[in-house]
Amino acid sequence: MDMKGLYADSIRGLKSSKIRELMKMASKPGIISLGGGMPDSVNLPFDSVKEIINQWSHKRAIDALQYGATKGFTSLIEKIKERMVEKKGISMDGQDIIITTGSQQALSLVSKLFLNPGDTVIVEIPSFIGAIAAFYSFMGIVEGVEVDEKGIIIEVLEKKLEHLKKLGKEVKFIYTIPNFNNPSGITLSMDRRKRLLEVANRYEIPIVEDDPYGDFYFTGDENDYRPIKSLDDSGTVLYLGTFSKVLSPGIRLGWIIAREDIIARLELQKQSFDACTPLLSQVIAEDYMKRGYIESYIVKMRKIYKTKRDAALKSLERYMPSEVKWTKPEGGFFIWVTLPEEMDPEELFKRTVEKNVAFVTGDAFLPENYKNRYIRLSYSNISVEDMDKGIKIIAETIREMM
Amino acid sequence: MDMKGLYADSIRGLKSSKIRELMKMASKPGIISLGGGMPDSVNLPFDSVKEIINQWSHKRAIDALQYGATKGFTSLIEKIKERMVEKKGISMDGQDIIITTGSQQALSLVSKLFLNPGDTVIVEIPSFIGAIAAFYSFMGIVEGVEVDEKGIIIEVLEKKLEHLKKLGKEVKFIYTIPNFNNPSGITLSMDRRKRLLEVANRYEIPIVEDDPYGDFYFTGDENDYRPIKSLDDSGTVLYLGTFSKVLSPGIRLGWIIAREDIIARLELQKQSFDACTPLLSQVIAEDYMKRGYIESYIVKMRKIYKTKRDAALKSLERYMPSEVKWTKPEGGFFIWVTLPEEMDPEELFKRTVEKNVAFVTGDAFLPENYKNRYIRLSYSNISVEDMDKGIKIIAETIREMM
Repeated sequence: MDMKGLYADSIRGLKSSKIRELMKMASKPGIISLGGGMPDSVNLPFDSVKEIINQWSHKRAIDALQYGATKGFTSLIEKIKERMVEKKGISMDGQDIIITTGSQQALSLVSKLFLNPGDTVIVEIPSFIGAIAAFYSFMGIVEGVEVDEKGIIIEVLEKKLEHLKKLGKEVKFIYTIPNFNNPSGITLSMDRRKRLLEVANRYEIPIVEDDPYGDFYFTGDENDYRPIKSLDDSGTVLYLGTFSKVLSPGIRLGWIIAREDIIARLELQKQSFDACTPLLSQVIAEDYMKRGYIESYIVKMRKIYKTKRDAALKSLERYMPSEVKWTKPEGGFFIWVTLPEEMDPEELFKRTVEKNVAFVTGDAFLPENYKNRYIRLSYSNISVEDMDKGIKIIAETIREMM
Repeated sequence: MDMKGLYADSIRGLKSSKIRELMKMASKPGIISLGGGMPDSVNLPFDSVKEIINQWSHKRAIDALQYGATKGFTSLIEKIKERMVEKKGISMDGQDIIITTGSQQALSLVSKLFLNPGDTVIVEIPSFIGAIAAFYSFMGIVEGVEVDEKGIIIEVLEKKLEHLKKLGKEVKFIYTIPNFNNPSGITLSMDRRKRLLEVANRYEIPIVEDDPYGDFYFTGDENDYRPIKSLDDSGTVLYLGTFSKVLSPGIRLGWIIAREDIIARLELQKQSFDACTPLLSQVIAEDYMKRGYIESYIVKMRKIYKTKRDAALKSLERYMPSEVKWTKPEGGFFIWVTLPEEMDPEELFKRTVEKNVAFVTGDAFLPENYKNRYIRLSYSNISVEDMDKGIKIIAETIREMM
């Protein structure tokens, strides 16, 4: 039976991304990887998780092992609400929360909520690979808007929106990662956050704000990295949070904050996606927050990631030829490197992998048809020693190719 | 901003199901519930889970807390393969497995794989609410085929397929729960399994076989309940398994067995759904299988569920008026009750809830436009005493209404 003939249109277009093929080459043992955007393995809070589970009563264990409500474990939702008000300055008036199975599911739910085939989503250039994949999977069209060191350029965005309007294209939402963008590491300035929200309101287009890294800033304080959602008094913003960087990716927990009516729609949709998010993970997360472990973990990891960022920037300064440029992230996990003109990132990748060093080529983070001359370096899950070695080898290989 | 105007077409049709509204009425404390199809809370294997986690090394804990492969944790996949060959008689030649976030996600993935808006799915009447919801959510059309005490009636199925062919309708797959169907409790006979597969091959339509309850048979042995997949040598069947009934629903783990090329497609799709299934759950499940806990748990629970089934049937015999009919399940969690003609299941529900007894009305398990005169009773997560009380009250209320 030729099942291909039976596939839905949305599936026919799915391609195994080049990035995955390349990453397979990079999975040999002993490789120095500046690739995947994973939290620091060594410091994952396993002892806390173990302690939490060991203290569960039989009743609590049943909460964790049974089915739960699609919207999420109520007491976890309450804990998240408290933290969002306190630490992020988000008002919960008329807003609600749904727990998702990682923020990748949030992206998928939001895509399913808004996108008919052919609808447009605006993203920063570059933008998160998982988000772009979700938009394409629901047959959206992805339009990129250029950024500078302060984030998305508002004038370019406005021009783009005017142009799309003239063409009669339906723009369903603007997707942004304001804090320490993945992959660029760039932060959207507070002034631009306000202007972005103003533009969104004027054009009546929702903003989907993805904030996985917001707790890991290396300068200033939390007020400097307040989400766009904290400025939003008309429910324009859907805010996406996650436990993947502040507890563990393996528990697959994220959340969406949005207007109550939107959350109710997302809840209906999520029922057929996976019925409910793992209760085992949700009950762990509630205890983790209740005991205050989340805040002390963030303080500890902020220092560790800052040390790594500093080391990465130092190694780049030391080894890279002057033709190479890179971003200086104020937080998060990533540095975005611009190669010398006409240099092929994929060829660079193949050569460094030969020398046991891996990273991610930039093409996966760009909408289709954008020329790539970028690579992403991730410093979050690698030792300072290995990072220095790795960056040195990448720099040497770039020189060889110049 | 009126976001409703921005929603995708597939979302506009989503309605909060009547069943959920009714279940809200039934969530008052102290209620005797024959409603939700949950495994027995009292016997969820929490001690095994705790023991497993306490014995993890630091390396193993990192496996559990980090990101993992979209397809699933390799060593868990291997364990499942072994068990499927050994206990279910499924050949893995040319077949592969993807781990899903519960089998609800499997249903959603399969729907996304095959369904363009307006495509048809064939289901048994009645069929699983979560499956029907997934098919509707991807804008499929659900066509029901009648069953008798041996399961789906092959002649009716063939007629339906001929009819749909003449109308030019594209049937994308046949969805079936051969073992102890949810909600009917009916088992598809071995003879009909063969004939169903033969029909599917002749019409070149895949079968999606959902088997959550197959391990919980109360008579005969495992050979009597071999999946259709075990008879399939041409890759026609996509088999759905789950850990929800043999370990815990709260860990959200299921799997799909299908041809390698189909699994590869599903893997691409799953990337944007939730990146990967919770590793914490997957590593627990691997240990649970490796230590043989799964087999001893199944043996223990088979006895417990059989005792409950026996008690439920006894109470029905004892209390119900002769106008009421019900199925006699050979396994699983459910009994499907046919009310006297012209009796309104929803009215019955409202009256029994007043008396602190709940069940599920049948409409959610029927494709749109089927008249409902059924209720589903679940005996899996209730004590024998409460069950007897509950069935007595339901029977009394039916008499009042006759």
